[in-house]
Amino acid sequence: MNYNEILDEITPNQEENTKVHKIANNIMDTINNIIHNESIDGEAILLGSVAKDTWLSGTADIDVFIKFSLDMSMDELKEKGLYLGYKCSEALNVIAEEHYASHPYLTLYVSNYKVDIVPCYDIEDACELKSAVDRTVLHTNYIKANLKDNQKNEVRILKKFMKETGVYGSEFKVGGFAGYLCEMLILHYGTFENTLENASTWVHGTVIDIENYKTDAQFDDGLIAIDPTDKNRNVGAALTKEKMIEFIVSSRNFIKNPRIDYFYSIEKTNLDYKNLLKSFKDRESKIITISFDVPDISIDNIYPQLNKTTISIDEKLEDLGFNIINSSYWYGEGEIAIIILEFDTWALSKYETHFGPKIWNKKASDDFLDMYGDKCYIEREFWALKRERKFRTPEKFFGHVFNKENIHILKIGKNLKELIINTNEIKSIEELLKDNKHYNKDNLLNFLYDYLNPGQLLKR
Amino acid sequence: MNYNEILDEITPNQEENTKVHKIANNIMDTINNIIHNESIDGEAILLGSVAKDTWLSGTADIDVFIKFSLDMSMDELKEKGLYLGYKCSEALNVIAEEHYASHPYLTLYVSNYKVDIVPCYDIEDACELKSAVDRTVLHTNYIKANLKDNQKNEVRILKKFMKETGVYGSEFKVGGFAGYLCEMLILHYGTFENTLENASTWVHGTVIDIENYKTDAQFDDGLIAIDPTDKNRNVGAALTKEKMIEFIVSSRNFIKNPRIDYFYSIEKTNLDYKNLLKSFKDRESKIITISFDVPDISIDNIYPQLNKTTISIDEKLEDLGFNIINSSYWYGEGEIAIIILEFDTWALSKYETHFGPKIWNKKASDDFLDMYGDKCYIEREFWALKRERKFRTPEKFFGHVFNKENIHILKIGKNLKELIINTNEIKSIEELLKDNKHYNKDNLLNFLYDYLNPGQLLKR
Repeated sequence: MNYNEILDEITPNQEENTKVHKIANNIMDTINNIIHNESIDGEAILLGSVAKDTWLSGTADIDVFIKFSLDMSMDELKEKGLYLGYKCSEALNVIAEEHYASHPYLTLYVSNYKVDIVPCYDIEDACELKSAVDRTVLHTNYIKANLKDNQKNEVRILKKFMKETGVYGSEFKVGGFAGYLCEMLILHYGTFENTLENASTWVHGTVIDIENYKTDAQFDDGLIAIDPTDKNRNVGAALTKEKMIEFIVSSRNFIKNPRIDYFYSIEKTNLDYKNLLKSFKDRESKIITISFDVPDISIDNIYPQLNKTTISIDEKLEDLGFNIINSSYWYGEGEIAIIILEFDTWALSKYETHFGPKIWNKKASDDFLDMYGDKCYIEREFWALKRERKFRTPEKFFGHVFNKENIHILKIGKNLKELIINTNEIKSIEELLKDNKHYNKDNLLNFLYDYLNPGQLLKR
Repeated sequence: MNYNEILDEITPNQEENTKVHKIANNIMDTINNIIHNESIDGEAILLGSVAKDTWLSGTADIDVFIKFSLDMSMDELKEKGLYLGYKCSEALNVIAEEHYASHPYLTLYVSNYKVDIVPCYDIEDACELKSAVDRTVLHTNYIKANLKDNQKNEVRILKKFMKETGVYGSEFKVGGFAGYLCEMLILHYGTFENTLENASTWVHGTVIDIENYKTDAQFDDGLIAIDPTDKNRNVGAALTKEKMIEFIVSSRNFIKNPRIDYFYSIEKTNLDYKNLLKSFKDRESKIITISFDVPDISIDNIYPQLNKTTISIDEKLEDLGFNIINSSYWYGEGEIAIIILEFDTWALSKYETHFGPKIWNKKASDDFLDMYGDKCYIEREFWALKRERKFRTPEKFFGHVFNKENIHILKIGKNLKELIINTNEIKSIEELLKDNKHYNKDNLLNFLYDYLNPGQLLKR
């Protein structure tokens, strides 16, 4: 296949390239000047995909790191890092947002480009590592030293393919392929097409070991991609099984029928409230949604908690006898979260069978009979009794569990507990679609569309 | 506990004893006269509980066996046996019914007593066995030789206890304790009370080995009761796990609180159509009944087929996504059978998830995708697709399956297949209780009462 058309679109041209580097240089110069003037022991450097020249046109995230000496204490590093970031934002007269990863960092917005200013230690080997972001220096250096010029475009094509098939990005929300992992794949397989050719036959436990460290036995992951800069780290650990599988499948699909469409967003037809409602109604299942406010904490903190909460609600409802076809969650960033549960069984009979010990065990039987008395009977080889169900509908259960006394029954993310108790609203899909409370309704409609069309991104 | 009151009731008095033996002797004399007059090589003898003097007052089944020489062919034995039986019934001018166990035999009704006339071979050891009924000679002789006079009453008390707690009788309908097994228990444990004391701690695989044959390792049954007349036969094999467990439990209950009530039938309160319907309605489940005519074949042939049919329907409905709380069957002897199914889930959503191969397997994946095309998506690590359910209600399924083309989907007893196709009627419990088609309505009401009150017999 000829990738010129797509490369024209994703490779930054001279103008864009110059502009991005000018912004980066301006920031680094500003910071390094302050460092020099105030005799601070540090240096601002350019890292990440802009430094590696593997970024996609229109999406440059500029990563300016400030390297400090390994002698500096972590507290001082944090303080100096923020200080220099804020000083720089003042000097350039741009807005600074404080964020937190392994330690605090600043995001500046300069001429529509997002620039992260991150303090780190100046390390040369993984064994010197003091915080997770320190690796970025090693990764950038490794790729700059090893990725050939003609492979940079292969990385770009792979990233774009992954993006449009929904598997790009290592943040928790996606759980897909990190940029660094894409670069490793091209280093290992040489080209985009060869990467897909190989991915189409990946199995659980596939090993990518560029430096031939042979340290893969310690990992039990779907994709074991040994970090060339740290033989005891698996870069594939953050890749979910789901996203690995999706990449395998879209690779197979692409190889079978390579089409330029794989590098463009799919068109979502009928993406409006009425059509979505119609599709949901056609399923003739029961859908219950739980909306609640979420705290203003980092997105990578919210998603695991939402995931845990949804799994816990799902499992508890299954335990109670309801049959859940599907569950998912949506996070309208900074505002609201919605858990969606789809039921095959949502109304249960009045009594449930409660099983006790096997009758063979006389002691346990006596205890059970002492507790429950004459209502007990034998089912197969167990003691059993019929007792009235506490919850014959999911709504009844939610009414019971979403308050201070009973919330412990569920495993709810710690930052969500309070808000789920105080702000939860249980709605049908119809009520959800009709209400006007959601700040990012388009995003919600998109989520529901994706819910109704699993796997839509994997084939063109 | 003092058993005099109950022994008074269950021990045949002089008068009854004389009467029963007079009938038996009369029949034996009649047959032996014919044998003598026609120079047939055989002899009528008295076997069974009357011969062993372990029968309960009011329930004497008189077993007259005609022993033939081992030289006689099976065909001749069958012919001679029936001939002598019919000749005898003519001579006494009583009605004869022909039955079939391992071979044909006759039942005569004489002065309200049931007399079975059964041909058998005259064997002295189990190794000479030619048909299952031949064992009766060995069993009767063994018990007569080994059961002490004072133990006969212990057997009677045990039989009566088992009868009223619902575990007596080895016929398939009950699946409980045979009379011979009761006698073995008393031989082994000495007394009724000691039998219960021991039974209360029985475990799966309990061994009763009166003759100390040590041959129990070959059996994998709940109760392994080695036949004293055949070391390779387990008399406990026909005892169902359910009935063994029920006996264990009622033994524990009796020991804890020995009451004379255990030897009397329980009173079924509110045993009428309105109260039953009320109890069923209170469960707020869904009950579907399947009534159909049954052929006029032996009862021990019907029950296993009904059992198999019910299990198959139950399993198939569970496979389809319905959730069955309970199922049972009733046989209104000679007329009609009813399968009763109680559902927790009886209406399903429109689509079901059909799972294909794991995505890792490229070949199987390709085949699956070729078959189902673009509708496929990934669920966990499997290919999946939503497809419309064929049967969203059990009624829909029954409409589909109860005809010649589709009946093979179920495992139906061979004698029931034709009739279930042609005569099945699907009714709610209300419709069933209201209709007047059942010839033995009281029996049906009793069955439904028992269904609603499992374990009622085990405690007083």
